[in-house]
Amino acid sequence: MIAARKHRIITFLSDFGTRDWFVPAVKGEILQKNPDALIIDITHELASFSIREAAFILMNTYHSFPPGTVHLAIVDPGVGSLRHAIIACSHGHYFVGPDNGLFSYIYSGSTSVYAIKDKKSASRTFHARDIFAPVAAKLSRGIEPHALGVKLKKFVCFTFPPVVKKNRLVKGEVVYIDRFGNLITNIPNNNMVRQFIMKDSYRVPVGSHYGQVKPGRLIALRGSAGYYEIASYQGNAARKTSAGIGMKVVGYL
Amino acid sequence: MIAARKHRIITFLSDFGTRDWFVPAVKGEILQKNPDALIIDITHELASFSIREAAFILMNTYHSFPPGTVHLAIVDPGVGSLRHAIIACSHGHYFVGPDNGLFSYIYSGSTSVYAIKDKKSASRTFHARDIFAPVAAKLSRGIEPHALGVKLKKFVCFTFPPVVKKNRLVKGEVVYIDRFGNLITNIPNNNMVRQFIMKDSYRVPVGSHYGQVKPGRLIALRGSAGYYEIASYQGNAARKTSAGIGMKVVGYL
Amino acid sequence: MIAARKHRIITFLSDFGTRDWFVPAVKGEILQKNPDALIIDITHELASFSIREAAFILMNTYHSFPPGTVHLAIVDPGVGSLRHAIIACSHGHYFVGPDNGLFSYIYSGSTSVYAIKDKKSASRTFHARDIFAPVAAKLSRGIEPHALGVKLKKFVCFTFPPVVKKNRLVKGEVVYIDRFGNLITNIPNNNMVRQFIMKDSYRVPVGSHYGQVKPGRLIALRGSAGYYEIASYQGNAARKTSAGIGMKVVGYL
Repeated sequence: MIAARKHRIITFLSDFGTRDWFVPAVKGEILQKNPDALIIDITHELASFSIREAAFILMNTYHSFPPGTVHLAIVDPGVGSLRHAIIACSHGHYFVGPDNGLFSYIYSGSTSVYAIKDKKSASRTFHARDIFAPVAAKLSRGIEPHALGVKLKKFVCFTFPPVVKKNRLVKGEVVYIDRFGNLITNIPNNNMVRQFIMKDSYRVPVGSHYGQVKPGRLIALRGSAGYYEIASYQGNAARKTSAGIGMKVVGYL
Repeated sequence: MIAARKHRIITFLSDFGTRDWFVPAVKGEILQKNPDALIIDITHELASFSIREAAFILMNTYHSFPPGTVHLAIVDPGVGSLRHAIIACSHGHYFVGPDNGLFSYIYSGSTSVYAIKDKKSASRTFHARDIFAPVAAKLSRGIEPHALGVKLKKFVCFTFPPVVKKNRLVKGEVVYIDRFGNLITNIPNNNMVRQFIMKDSYRVPVGSHYGQVKPGRLIALRGSAGYYEIASYQGNAARKTSAGIGMKVVGYL
Repeated sequence: MIAARKHRIITFLSDFGTRDWFVPAVKGEILQKNPDALIIDITHELASFSIREAAFILMNTYHSFPPGTVHLAIVDPGVGSLRHAIIACSHGHYFVGPDNGLFSYIYSGSTSVYAIKDKKSASRTFHARDIFAPVAAKLSRGIEPHALGVKLKKFVCFTFPPVVKKNRLVKGEVVYIDRFGNLITNIPNNNMVRQFIMKDSYRVPVGSHYGQVKPGRLIALRGSAGYYEIASYQGNAARKTSAGIGMKVVGYL
């Protein structure tokens, strides 16, 4: 169990954008409940309702923060419906958001999940401000999850796309495309891939840094997220290859 | 009167965008004058000079913050001209910005407005950094508005578009469109509207949450801003209906 | 030499965008090493690899922050190659980033530059998180640069484009275009320019504030960055004149 002490940092991920008042309204509510909270934005620029992208971002970010950090994540197409609002405790961090799979990639054998108790007065459309923000603030003040919700046995969890290894091949797919157009795969860095093949036609050498190929050419690298990624040096690999999330890639060991 | 004590939070709204150095330069000046200030961005992505949108955002945001918060808001097409720079004290909050109507929707009977004293050395184009930021920092340190300016009797104030009720109809208009394309009206949630008609052709049922209609269909909800809003479930109501700000809507009670 | 004491503020500029996890991962690493750090974003929206724009932004921003501020700046097309990672001490501020000219415009006669010692375990692609963030955090905790690196005699430094004065003409160029489309030149405000000529055809009067011309017309102003800039009142000068960075301008004294 995580010790009941103050946890100052609250990270905040959403699909709210930064043009309206949604993000600052949530921050204001947090600061009303915990004036000492330090709120760090993860991103608010996700395409509406892209739960799997949010899950991947959370998986890659949470461990850069100290244990005890509260991660508030709101990508919530089912807001106002009967889906649970949850607190998940995993790897010594707290995660607060809707129960729709957002936290799938951080769940582990020792994860505890709590359903947040109903708050009858909440608005029907802005649970981030009215339900989730106060809970995140309370967790950051050291209030225990079991004081804020009831333990859940079933919660939504989807699986990270599996990799298939056979003979000297490893077959995976693109799971995320970053703003540089880098294609992040699900093939872990610890595989000894020499070359990738994409779309039967692109042969991509594996290198150790971008500059090993000429500008515009494709190169595969061991990525900072822990998975191979395919980049175009000073270019955009996604545009160059018309790749999308889910596209198959084959690595030759 | 607001007690003379420290107010740590300064919110910051502008039309500066986040690509150049304008926003961080303002923050740096604030932190030079008050190292303990906690600066929270409202938004910097407003279209240039959209004063009414800014006023609506402020109206929806300020009350999420604790009393005593300083709200710095800079949408200022008249920078360098003779318009006043003002401090408004209203609802226990401080508002700092140009006198062009930005604070119209937070003015009330007990609002006090002060014209900030001239600062001869200021740049002609960057008053946010050179005039407004230092004033916001001083207010956050507990300096009283009357020490920073002289009371104004006249200031720019435009009115929130009024709603017309007649028989069993309530006539209003769209006052804001958020990044999801939701059409926010000026018809308060406490009207018992059963159906909206837009553009003589769209009939929009009133529901309690987005998911009550099929994806793409229109639904009206009591919005988190306190006004009815018209949404397209998992879609974009503004694009679907080609609606703009000012478009008339009729509610059937 | 700068006194060895705590410097709380760390500014952060990059070309990472705010859609992925790169920016918050860097912030998390900083907060792990210095929980008291106050991180202020400069911008993360630079076009990939635009080193000169970043240098111009840094030149215009750093002095708004108090001495001792640590400025973390990552625009790093050569990440993973042999370029040095550096700490520059200049004007009482610290600058941390790759040695590719990013800090050119803040270097002065008394600048000291240190090459950050190698960290063998770092990822090949995310030095911002794995190398630069910890160094910025350590500087903000008062650790001296000479404890973190070895002094460099040679470092990359490009020159600010020079202005040519001849008879009653001053010839310069556009060095930056802001999000409003204002054309910022390299001609300092202290020149007594009466009129600018651009592209042999645009004659631009010099004024003291935007509103002196009709909406859409061009006007030159003494800009807040210390250089003349050419604006279109309530319009976009860059679009109106199809101007780009490097375009020549001639001022008539």
